[in-house]
Amino acid sequence: MTQLRLALAQVNPTVGDLAGNAALVRAWSRRAADAGAHLVAFPEMVLTGYPVEDLALRTSFVDASRAAVARLAAALAGDGLGDLPVVVGYLDRVDRDGDGQGDNVAPAVRVGVPKGEPQNCAAICVGGRVLARYAKHHLPNYGVFDEFRIFVPGRDLTVARVRGVDVAIAICEDLWQEGGPVALTRAAGAELLLVLNGSPYERDKDDVRRELVTRRAGQAGCALAYVNLVGGQDDLVFDGDSIVVAADGQVLARAPQFDEHLLTVDLDLPPEATHADPPVVDGVRHVVISPDPVPRYSPDPALQAPATIADPRDGEAEVYRALVVGLRDYVRKNGFRSVVLGLSGGIDSTLVAAIACDALGAQNVVGVSMPSEYSSEHSKDDAADLASRTGLDYRVVPIEPMVASFLTALGLTGLAEENLQARVRGVVLMGLSNQEGHLTLTTGNKSELAVGYTTIYGDSVGGFNPIKDVPKTDVWALSRWRNAEAVHRGEKPPIPEPCIAKAPSAELRPGQLDQDSLPPYDLLDAVLERYVEGAHGRSELLADGFDAATLDGVVTMVDRAEWKRRQSAPGPKVSPVAFGRDRRLPITSRWREHES
Amino acid sequence: MTQLRLALAQVNPTVGDLAGNAALVRAWSRRAADAGAHLVAFPEMVLTGYPVEDLALRTSFVDASRAAVARLAAALAGDGLGDLPVVVGYLDRVDRDGDGQGDNVAPAVRVGVPKGEPQNCAAICVGGRVLARYAKHHLPNYGVFDEFRIFVPGRDLTVARVRGVDVAIAICEDLWQEGGPVALTRAAGAELLLVLNGSPYERDKDDVRRELVTRRAGQAGCALAYVNLVGGQDDLVFDGDSIVVAADGQVLARAPQFDEHLLTVDLDLPPEATHADPPVVDGVRHVVISPDPVPRYSPDPALQAPATIADPRDGEAEVYRALVVGLRDYVRKNGFRSVVLGLSGGIDSTLVAAIACDALGAQNVVGVSMPSEYSSEHSKDDAADLASRTGLDYRVVPIEPMVASFLTALGLTGLAEENLQARVRGVVLMGLSNQEGHLTLTTGNKSELAVGYTTIYGDSVGGFNPIKDVPKTDVWALSRWRNAEAVHRGEKPPIPEPCIAKAPSAELRPGQLDQDSLPPYDLLDAVLERYVEGAHGRSELLADGFDAATLDGVVTMVDRAEWKRRQSAPGPKVSPVAFGRDRRLPITSRWREHES
Repeated sequence: MTQLRLALAQVNPTVGDLAGNAALVRAWSRRAADAGAHLVAFPEMVLTGYPVEDLALRTSFVDASRAAVARLAAALAGDGLGDLPVVVGYLDRVDRDGDGQGDNVAPAVRVGVPKGEPQNCAAICVGGRVLARYAKHHLPNYGVFDEFRIFVPGRDLTVARVRGVDVAIAICEDLWQEGGPVALTRAAGAELLLVLNGSPYERDKDDVRRELVTRRAGQAGCALAYVNLVGGQDDLVFDGDSIVVAADGQVLARAPQFDEHLLTVDLDLPPEATHADPPVVDGVRHVVISPDPVPRYSPDPALQAPATIADPRDGEAEVYRALVVGLRDYVRKNGFRSVVLGLSGGIDSTLVAAIACDALGAQNVVGVSMPSEYSSEHSKDDAADLASRTGLDYRVVPIEPMVASFLTALGLTGLAEENLQARVRGVVLMGLSNQEGHLTLTTGNKSELAVGYTTIYGDSVGGFNPIKDVPKTDVWALSRWRNAEAVHRGEKPPIPEPCIAKAPSAELRPGQLDQDSLPPYDLLDAVLERYVEGAHGRSELLADGFDAATLDGVVTMVDRAEWKRRQSAPGPKVSPVAFGRDRRLPITSRWREHES
Repeated sequence: MTQLRLALAQVNPTVGDLAGNAALVRAWSRRAADAGAHLVAFPEMVLTGYPVEDLALRTSFVDASRAAVARLAAALAGDGLGDLPVVVGYLDRVDRDGDGQGDNVAPAVRVGVPKGEPQNCAAICVGGRVLARYAKHHLPNYGVFDEFRIFVPGRDLTVARVRGVDVAIAICEDLWQEGGPVALTRAAGAELLLVLNGSPYERDKDDVRRELVTRRAGQAGCALAYVNLVGGQDDLVFDGDSIVVAADGQVLARAPQFDEHLLTVDLDLPPEATHADPPVVDGVRHVVISPDPVPRYSPDPALQAPATIADPRDGEAEVYRALVVGLRDYVRKNGFRSVVLGLSGGIDSTLVAAIACDALGAQNVVGVSMPSEYSSEHSKDDAADLASRTGLDYRVVPIEPMVASFLTALGLTGLAEENLQARVRGVVLMGLSNQEGHLTLTTGNKSELAVGYTTIYGDSVGGFNPIKDVPKTDVWALSRWRNAEAVHRGEKPPIPEPCIAKAPSAELRPGQLDQDSLPPYDLLDAVLERYVEGAHGRSELLADGFDAATLDGVVTMVDRAEWKRRQSAPGPKVSPVAFGRDRRLPITSRWREHES
């Protein structure tokens, strides 16, 4: 058997921070070398951050990425790491002149071809330079992805011989499609398929991923190593979950979700292919980095610890962590240190406050109670209780004087008066944000956002919404889970029980309850899951067992609220279909399911 | 020579309104028949409206479109129009069973293939049924287009023999690409290439279009007829500009921009090819509708009027009309009848008020002056003067009491106090909108939006922004043009001269001028055009002649304001690159041009 010590660096870069991301690669490459690795791999587009969206269409950015990867390769050699092949994702340009490198000159703009012909690439840095590169073949252009818009697809597979082991390289979507790189890897007789990923989290994706790498390892006929990003980027959260499987699908190593981690594993690979000349296969480019296998392998015993095989998180633990990481990184990467949010005593703002305290520390969370004449005593008490449980910075700003000043000037009534209260609260929060420098959080759950049960420029005010993609029923489940977790850890539960138990109300008029305007939340969320995530039509919804009046009402509310969602704050995607770029619908539309 | 009387129906459908759009097709087909047409063509996706975005991924919507086109074909026959071939764009599904029709059953979801395998199609309705169809080959996936996301590309060209004339059919992007349908049209020996379009307006696109149809007619070796939509749809405006050219590029007919129009033209086609059997060409499907040429043609002399050859609009006239149509249709198609906006006396809100009066009638425009202690007398006077010139519904709501109530509660200062005034105005406008049912308009120009010189949830409040894509220098130019146009028509100019002449100010603190914070607008707009529309990097901007301090300042402001733009209202695209889906950038990004 041949051995290869592989290291996967599951790291958290920042979009556009070429210098910072290069420093991250150098630091983790040093850790990999210290761990005795023969090869270290970083995730998709680690050098630029991911996704870069239309930054890829700026030739200045493509050129900067190309210069940065060359500088990085030199710097790694300067760090004494020139012998360690380092595989990094970056942004390059099409190789038209066939020299194996991206071209220096951006071609003229042609209709339908991404400006500057950018490619989503992997570079093998070794010996102070980029020895070889690979361009992603399959460009996802569905869900949250727009890669056909911004990249030119690659055509060839790159196979690098490292310590006598043939390593094929692929990038993310290449693994989700049957043809192309996976089939070429088998044809080329490679012994390891190394896949660089920028695979965003959604609930239970770890299960799908596990099944996929097993299946593709079988199809490629070799071991498969999958390295993924961690961290938040706008409306996406990357959960890592990097994994290595043998050709038979056995899990050899798996990194913990959501945390940076260096996953090292000793691969025992079949010897027979190792020294043979590789087969000549059309579309496969071979490069030899180090032809000789690792000598009879006897490393420092201290390095012989078994590989990590982390258990993925599950259920609420997984989603909660995604929300914390998504918020933490949005705040940190955008240069904020603190947040402000309104605390109504309701479960949505209460859960968001708990998430914010976990993400940023309670000392960086300002919670503002803004009671009106319709606010109940229990709401005010619950908000205060939350503050004392968590230790967040608690303020009380009664809104009656401001509301009265508008009513005097405008004489608003009914819904206009209800919305006015929410908007006065929005002005208060933004005032504190501007005065003190906090990021404002908005706290509308996915169910509210779906049916438009929000006041635009009112409770929707804010730069980020941690629970944008969390249905109301999951808001309760996450709250219960967070409290149970606290008990489990021997800590005080952050969320007052009445916040979970009481009937939801916007408290914008006397005795108002959400259920006066909406179906019960368990029913509403069941319809929404099928209509929004499943894109079920009316006949399918009827077949799902919903009664016509309920489903027609819900569907109509969803369709009519599109204009509000267009102006809503981003928030972390945790479901298969989040609002935003994951679901793009016209505002102006007369399509109604019940008229079909 | 063979004659064919062709009618192009340049109409304004509504997205999702299958029944209404079918009625539109029937009414205009009747007009075409009354005009003696042998063939009538409607624009791309006329039956569903365009663009439908992710509605295409709902199988219920695909099925509804398929049912609607079948009903339409039958209804046309019922109308006595069964002999008139009617070509309509609609949404269909891939034809896997090869029967020439889209399949009835939606296939299972596969990674990377649009759900339900929808296609952007053209149907030839004749004799009460869909006789043949064509699926668009080239799917634009750049700029505002996401068609690779939502459609499966077609593979074959359809050529229909109508009155002995072979007519090839193509759809929009098929014309912008060299290969595919244009080349197949030549190979098939067709005598007319009929192109259905959903081609959104941008300034001077009419010139590009004219050049394109001429070039492609030459490449296809036959006459070319181009029929386009008119009307507004969210952030797009379609300008029509339908056009027919001979094989040598001579313009035979051209419809006026922005208005619904039936463009009829008698085509004199070379006789030699007409009766030959068409060549057998791989990928070309022939269908015969009516083999015999039109008999020695002697129509009713009343019908022999020469074809319309409209002069396209130019410069400000063209852009102004696009803004009026974009606003009019957003209001109308979303079920509103009136709008409300704040009138500061500044040029932005003044121009928007003029546009709104032109689009909706002054009686449907509510203008609210909301003076603060920092508002100048001339601002109040100019707002009142605008109201009296146009006759809009004018209100005055001083904001000092509301501002004072917040200042008492929160003690805001500096920028927070400035923003507070803008937000109080936003609350006033939304209160009136909720109370009285008006759509709120926001009036920030493209220059402000670019550099973030706006108060989010303040002056940015509103459902639609007519001048979102209009730089400040063009705001002045359009205002001057509108006044000159009034003089030209012998009407009173709507815009008070001081609004155009005075130095711009937000009037949020004493003596404040825009130029205290920003470069002069002519310089700012010049940088923005190259940075935003041209995607120039720093070295290109330096080569453009801008000094480093100015361009670095502007570029940094633009990059940092992305989060505000994400929550901004839609507005009509009139430039090559509008903010919104035309330019998709991360909020979280540390990329700075000056650090590259």
